[in-house]
Amino acid sequence: MSQTTTETGSNLSFILNKPYDVKFEERPKPTIQSPHDVVVAINYTGICGSDVHYWVEGRIGPFVVKDPMVLGHESAGTIVTVGDAVRSLKVGDRVAIEPGFPCRRCEPCLSGHYNLCIDMHFAATPPYDGTLAGFYASPEDFCYKLPESVSLQEGALIEPLAVAVHIVKQAEIKPGQSVVVMGAGPVGLLCCAVAKAYGASKIVSVDIVPSRLEFAASYAATHTFTPERKPAEENAARLLEEVGIPEGADAVIDASGAEPSIQTSIHVVRRGGVYVQGGMGKPDITFPIMTLCTKEVTCKGSFRYGSGDYKLAVELVASKKVDVKKLITGTVKFEDAEQAFKDVKAGTGIKCLIAGPNEKI
Amino acid sequence: MSQTTTETGSNLSFILNKPYDVKFEERPKPTIQSPHDVVVAINYTGICGSDVHYWVEGRIGPFVVKDPMVLGHESAGTIVTVGDAVRSLKVGDRVAIEPGFPCRRCEPCLSGHYNLCIDMHFAATPPYDGTLAGFYASPEDFCYKLPESVSLQEGALIEPLAVAVHIVKQAEIKPGQSVVVMGAGPVGLLCCAVAKAYGASKIVSVDIVPSRLEFAASYAATHTFTPERKPAEENAARLLEEVGIPEGADAVIDASGAEPSIQTSIHVVRRGGVYVQGGMGKPDITFPIMTLCTKEVTCKGSFRYGSGDYKLAVELVASKKVDVKKLITGTVKFEDAEQAFKDVKAGTGIKCLIAGPNEKI
Amino acid sequence: MSQTTTETGSNLSFILNKPYDVKFEERPKPTIQSPHDVVVAINYTGICGSDVHYWVEGRIGPFVVKDPMVLGHESAGTIVTVGDAVRSLKVGDRVAIEPGFPCRRCEPCLSGHYNLCIDMHFAATPPYDGTLAGFYASPEDFCYKLPESVSLQEGALIEPLAVAVHIVKQAEIKPGQSVVVMGAGPVGLLCCAVAKAYGASKIVSVDIVPSRLEFAASYAATHTFTPERKPAEENAARLLEEVGIPEGADAVIDASGAEPSIQTSIHVVRRGGVYVQGGMGKPDITFPIMTLCTKEVTCKGSFRYGSGDYKLAVELVASKKVDVKKLITGTVKFEDAEQAFKDVKAGTGIKCLIAGPNEKI
Amino acid sequence: MSQTTTETGSNLSFILNKPYDVKFEERPKPTIQSPHDVVVAINYTGICGSDVHYWVEGRIGPFVVKDPMVLGHESAGTIVTVGDAVRSLKVGDRVAIEPGFPCRRCEPCLSGHYNLCIDMHFAATPPYDGTLAGFYASPEDFCYKLPESVSLQEGALIEPLAVAVHIVKQAEIKPGQSVVVMGAGPVGLLCCAVAKAYGASKIVSVDIVPSRLEFAASYAATHTFTPERKPAEENAARLLEEVGIPEGADAVIDASGAEPSIQTSIHVVRRGGVYVQGGMGKPDITFPIMTLCTKEVTCKGSFRYGSGDYKLAVELVASKKVDVKKLITGTVKFEDAEQAFKDVKAGTGIKCLIAGPNEKI
Repeated sequence: MSQTTTETGSNLSFILNKPYDVKFEERPKPTIQSPHDVVVAINYTGICGSDVHYWVEGRIGPFVVKDPMVLGHESAGTIVTVGDAVRSLKVGDRVAIEPGFPCRRCEPCLSGHYNLCIDMHFAATPPYDGTLAGFYASPEDFCYKLPESVSLQEGALIEPLAVAVHIVKQAEIKPGQSVVVMGAGPVGLLCCAVAKAYGASKIVSVDIVPSRLEFAASYAATHTFTPERKPAEENAARLLEEVGIPEGADAVIDASGAEPSIQTSIHVVRRGGVYVQGGMGKPDITFPIMTLCTKEVTCKGSFRYGSGDYKLAVELVASKKVDVKKLITGTVKFEDAEQAFKDVKAGTGIKCLIAGPNEKI
Repeated sequence: MSQTTTETGSNLSFILNKPYDVKFEERPKPTIQSPHDVVVAINYTGICGSDVHYWVEGRIGPFVVKDPMVLGHESAGTIVTVGDAVRSLKVGDRVAIEPGFPCRRCEPCLSGHYNLCIDMHFAATPPYDGTLAGFYASPEDFCYKLPESVSLQEGALIEPLAVAVHIVKQAEIKPGQSVVVMGAGPVGLLCCAVAKAYGASKIVSVDIVPSRLEFAASYAATHTFTPERKPAEENAARLLEEVGIPEGADAVIDASGAEPSIQTSIHVVRRGGVYVQGGMGKPDITFPIMTLCTKEVTCKGSFRYGSGDYKLAVELVASKKVDVKKLITGTVKFEDAEQAFKDVKAGTGIKCLIAGPNEKI
Repeated sequence: MSQTTTETGSNLSFILNKPYDVKFEERPKPTIQSPHDVVVAINYTGICGSDVHYWVEGRIGPFVVKDPMVLGHESAGTIVTVGDAVRSLKVGDRVAIEPGFPCRRCEPCLSGHYNLCIDMHFAATPPYDGTLAGFYASPEDFCYKLPESVSLQEGALIEPLAVAVHIVKQAEIKPGQSVVVMGAGPVGLLCCAVAKAYGASKIVSVDIVPSRLEFAASYAATHTFTPERKPAEENAARLLEEVGIPEGADAVIDASGAEPSIQTSIHVVRRGGVYVQGGMGKPDITFPIMTLCTKEVTCKGSFRYGSGDYKLAVELVASKKVDVKKLITGTVKFEDAEQAFKDVKAGTGIKCLIAGPNEKI
Repeated sequence: MSQTTTETGSNLSFILNKPYDVKFEERPKPTIQSPHDVVVAINYTGICGSDVHYWVEGRIGPFVVKDPMVLGHESAGTIVTVGDAVRSLKVGDRVAIEPGFPCRRCEPCLSGHYNLCIDMHFAATPPYDGTLAGFYASPEDFCYKLPESVSLQEGALIEPLAVAVHIVKQAEIKPGQSVVVMGAGPVGLLCCAVAKAYGASKIVSVDIVPSRLEFAASYAATHTFTPERKPAEENAARLLEEVGIPEGADAVIDASGAEPSIQTSIHVVRRGGVYVQGGMGKPDITFPIMTLCTKEVTCKGSFRYGSGDYKLAVELVASKKVDVKKLITGTVKFEDAEQAFKDVKAGTGIKCLIAGPNEKI
């Protein structure tokens, strides 16, 4: 394949063998498969709950790690190789990588919903390797150039921000609206920030950990709420009273995956409002379906990110509408990758980055 | 209030005192409250599950029958009085009555969602009297003139047809799509018929009663399916295989309210598809929320009917796109109203009408 | 009609007899027509192009001033009378008045598009009197309480801001988008400000008057553009190049009504983008319809304001997202009302307010 | 490229050198460029106005025929070669060919609007060769298998039917609505038929040729209308009166490209209604923009066809909801291709097919 390249350095990779069993291995460097592809040298990678889930369980639902798999999918890097048909990027460009490449040919792809592609190639989802390595090959249109004002560390946060962008788009949030966000982890916090950028007037962060709510209030929430061990209706009623929206919230986002949060959400949302399931949790829960029915609530799932989400995420950071730097609570060397997984599992900090194997920190 | 009237006859009313305790009583005739109002002499009234629910339980959820209440809300009649501002109707016109009058002033009303009105006046929902009487007063714009080709008996079926129209609109059904309808009672059957009028190519009626599925197949369904006592995923997989839609159904409508049907629905709907909760059942159920999330299913409630639904329902009958006559399995005299309630409770027939007290049958 | 009132003072009214022929007259005070009505003592009224158009021409299109008519429709005031059914307002409340009351019964009203009501009662549109008077009667739900942080002068600007809100909603503007606004008069400037509140990243103000563009740049535009006397395609190409959006603008708003601006707009908007006609001008123009066709542009009209627009306008001012104070370039006494009309006609200042006849300034 | 093939026969091609100058030439057979591609032996090809436009003018707008180009783009054929990754098609399958292949990588492509692709490869649009040849290579997902009940001749009509499907989708037609279609040529007629399949109750075909209106009435229109040489408002008013829709039409489609039709359309559509520009005509016309503005008409362009349109077109023919056979007024041998162009130019018949060079007729 004809190309231009300046690729040098190691392709050391961080690999999951099976639950709690990882290794570092020098792997062959990835190459471009099409003249539209690029190779990216990885600078920074964030770790999220699903990475940790694979490390702990070796699977997420139907996706089972059978062969050793490179972990990681929240990465920013630097272009080192471009195929001959690449027009928008050049060697040396700093990019955020959208880590799922759709088939471009199925009905979801052709109709603008490539996140629902039936043949998705997604980093660190079996059987596809992830980005915790020296290099990663990607189609040009799934790498997003970072403006000078956005650092590579911030670039690694574009992935969770794109998750939040997609959730908020699903929630159809409009200026002046009230939004309740269940869960104040990284995605919940970013949902608050994106809701603010979408013009929401009241943004209520809900969590049971006081320090998280404190951070949320200092970050993007206008109100915080701590649920009690009481029926969902009671928590909902108290929330609406405390926030001063007796008619209910225009939109409710669950970024927690917790059953009581989901139940409370349906009682919190107003007649004709929107509820979005963003967080992963138990596959089946007890759900107040008749309340949804008689209030004509629209309940939607949100899965990864799709058309325009990464582009908007970069723009929100570049324009200072969303501050992702505040969420970075540490950066470790590539050799300390396993420690980062342990920290995320323990709930230490908000977002920890792992430097690429060729990155000096 | 200035008006034109030809009102004569009895206002005998069929009244619920408390569960299983009904009476017939001659009540004062209703009068118009505004120059935009009309009075309708009731010719025929259908009975539905919610009427029977009040008769059996004396309540539906938060709506409790405290004082004796006239039952009935699926009615057609003849205009006998018109206020001075009425322009579209005249004495003698035959009409279907939309039995809920919204406040016209709250946010749902002003934004085109009057079915979600916070101050709705709905027939036979406490504390408002219903239509099982000689006469009923209504705003002009909630009475829909029946074309000559539509009988007054058919007019009494416009109400459940409007329920089905609203559900199908919520399901966003488009020509060529596949639709699964859970439940083959009156509303489920009408959902099949309306889905057909909306151009659906595959319409799957699902029920556990063989005779109902037989009727559905002869009425508007292209396929029928009988679920077994097995996990929802298994029933869903078999349905999709039998119908030949491996990618899943574009839309699924629950007109049953049954927990297993709702669970199966979420496994039957395709990625990015729509699920509508139309039937009433248990307030809380076990629900596969993570399947909804990762498939980005849009799940909506459907509550009564709103802007344009009655108008379209009349048009569908007038244009012969929906045949409601086939659903009428009997008509009883007003004096036999209680028997009609017993028959509906027993599941006898599909739709039973009660003639008005001034109607000879 | 049962009511609570503290009404005192003059109902001096500013009346148009025929073009350029006005008078002041003490008129009978308005009274409530329904228990849902209020009477407002007018504090401030803004003047806009359509007011001036009636003053100059005695008509706007099919609306002809036949009998003497009170002018004015951009007003804020203080509640002095409330009907017995009024719940959300009390005597003494400061409000912005939405000056058009729909019939609440026609198809546009019932479907959530009351601005398209076929029987609208709109202030200072013949035959209905306007708000340049001591008092004005209104339904409760068309008066919007001003928070303490919003002054009555700002309240008079809610009307043109609601016009801009409706236009921007029609334009479906989303965060990160590029928007071009043709015309930098009051509505064009407010469209820029609302587009910013909706998250637009690039907001291009277009006008031929340098001082207006200077103000726009200091107010809410990120870019300005001065068209030349050249073909529309050339102005469009230069605009897109200067702003750096070679693919075209996501949305274009015409707030000028000028034929060359409208033509340029269709060449400026991107494939699949939205164009909104907000400004009034010549009834028929030369229009590049085939460019619209092959780019699949969606072109919409925007007419006055509808459901939720006033509420959002108040919220945008209260939350400091839109600064309307900067647009107020003068306030005159009621007796000097005619001078205000002359100033607007001459293009002096941006927005001039007229104090109510009982208001001391 | 690994493949399976049974390709035999001539690749005789019908080629445009310059206006009115055509030739037949044996060209090298096309080959697959990707394992996802197929080669189709062409059985039948229809001719439309844009083909004739190239023949007469050598260009359409900015698309200029510089080098000799194979004409034709409305074709059905038989699969003779499949690449190794092809799954849904096999040699011998009969297919309708969607003749435009998008880049799959630009923003319009990724967002589900591939008809607006900025790098479209479209048959018989310079510099790309068309389908009037023995063979044509295509990506698998742009070939649509014809069910047994659909003939190859009908298959050649899927292209104009897909055009009509896209137009009707843009018009957002729903059951019970009134639709006016300007122009009763092939696309106008198919728009009537598709509008009927979408449930429209009143379908008004407008043309100045009586025989066309006669056909329209026998085909899918419920009403016909012949405009006179009078102002657009007058024709509009008479149409609405004759059809009995005083409030205006819910949707108006222009399939004529004629200036007076477009003007009349804007006066015919109701407040809040939709107008779609489907037909090609003069680039600039006199347009009643202020009527569009004050009625809040949504005016959209429609360009070719996109996601799901071909699939639905095939389904509409297979289900007998649209009869395309009635539109086929003749089939000529490949050698008589030029005569077919002459006939279309002369307005003879409705739709003429040209058999493939290897097809016996």
